[in-house]
Amino acid sequence: MENIISRNSKIPLYYQLYNILLNNIKEGVWQPNDLLPSESELVDQYSLSRATVRQAFDMLVNQGYVYRRRGQGTFVARPTIEQNLVRIVSFWEDMKQRGLEPGTKVLEREIVSANEDLANELQVPEGEDLASIVRLRLADGEPMSVEYSYLVHRYCPGVLDQDYANNSLRMMLREQFNVNLVYARQRIRAVPATEELAELLDIEHNSPLLHIERVTFSDQDIPIEYLQINLRGDRYTFYTELRD
Amino acid sequence: MENIISRNSKIPLYYQLYNILLNNIKEGVWQPNDLLPSESELVDQYSLSRATVRQAFDMLVNQGYVYRRRGQGTFVARPTIEQNLVRIVSFWEDMKQRGLEPGTKVLEREIVSANEDLANELQVPEGEDLASIVRLRLADGEPMSVEYSYLVHRYCPGVLDQDYANNSLRMMLREQFNVNLVYARQRIRAVPATEELAELLDIEHNSPLLHIERVTFSDQDIPIEYLQINLRGDRYTFYTELRD
Repeated sequence: MENIISRNSKIPLYYQLYNILLNNIKEGVWQPNDLLPSESELVDQYSLSRATVRQAFDMLVNQGYVYRRRGQGTFVARPTIEQNLVRIVSFWEDMKQRGLEPGTKVLEREIVSANEDLANELQVPEGEDLASIVRLRLADGEPMSVEYSYLVHRYCPGVLDQDYANNSLRMMLREQFNVNLVYARQRIRAVPATEELAELLDIEHNSPLLHIERVTFSDQDIPIEYLQINLRGDRYTFYTELRD
Repeated sequence: MENIISRNSKIPLYYQLYNILLNNIKEGVWQPNDLLPSESELVDQYSLSRATVRQAFDMLVNQGYVYRRRGQGTFVARPTIEQNLVRIVSFWEDMKQRGLEPGTKVLEREIVSANEDLANELQVPEGEDLASIVRLRLADGEPMSVEYSYLVHRYCPGVLDQDYANNSLRMMLREQFNVNLVYARQRIRAVPATEELAELLDIEHNSPLLHIERVTFSDQDIPIEYLQINLRGDRYTFYTELRD
């Protein structure tokens, strides 16, 4: 691929630049997490308008080849983490299996009363005690997701006194409370990051997140946990198979 | 829920406003697609800072209760379309089953040569003829997704002469070319909308999209189609079940 922009070509200028940049990524000239030239540098280097350069960048972001970081610029994306949507796998086990070092930062833990929505999801009366835990998840020290978990407290009394930072919650429920999580229903959407989530995940405000709402059931078919997961869109991919 | 902001409360101001607005939505004071008061109006009405009002709006968007429209304001979201991630269902059948009127606008159709990526995905040599079709999908006239489809042309020669706008491509392949699509692998990510996609989908630039890459196989286990689907994040939800 030629490393020059042709003004006589039928191919749009932004698409030519997109191909030049993509080529540098695919050929390994730029490695994962390398900083790309700034928009201004490319404007100067190729005598293009800022809008044209931005269009090429947008397309690279949209296709998942690069990501933007708050106030720092645009970087080559690492391969995203692919997760199969069939088995329940805890973040902890998942990261270990990928050879990444899982980390958890507990941001909040408290007993709350179920509001109407949570009561519906967990099939308990309004006002029921729930153990609420907010956790930041990290992989090799990099923030990956923010999880809001609500456990029906009567099935795991005292659960908030346990050590979440270094244990799988799922394993803890099985071993300490004899609660086996075997089945989950979940909804997946793409949503913009609030300012608060953006800050925690070190991404730009309004960046796309994969947003999961999951209700997990015990082997007694009782809903135990309602979980909201906010995964970085630039770092996570779901993988799934469909049949006719 | 009280419709006033208390400055003595321990509850943050943005969260109080969030609750007031959410209550109006849940109680049906505001109906789906109703325009919410503007940020400026709420700033004046409740004597709040613009940052506080924006934080409440962000949270409503993040939770899927409202959506923003380019230059028009913030609206109450309709229930999103939930799709189960187990069966292959064509957009056409899917919409019909939901009682929505499906619409398709063919934006482009042409024969293209497979580049390296497409050749890999479809297991054909580089340069192989592919039938490329770009379609805008609508539900009851509202834009829902933009689909980029690449079919291996030798399995469906002349497919571009067919009428896509009013037929299911999948049905056409079966009936006209004896090609049965039975199995698909797909990857799902959350990505920001490029300017071009935002315009087609009538959403804001960089709004989150559910981005699907799907390779569909025939009953002979041959890859037939590579499909990229860009679904509006504010209108689509995937539904899935997990087992231990």
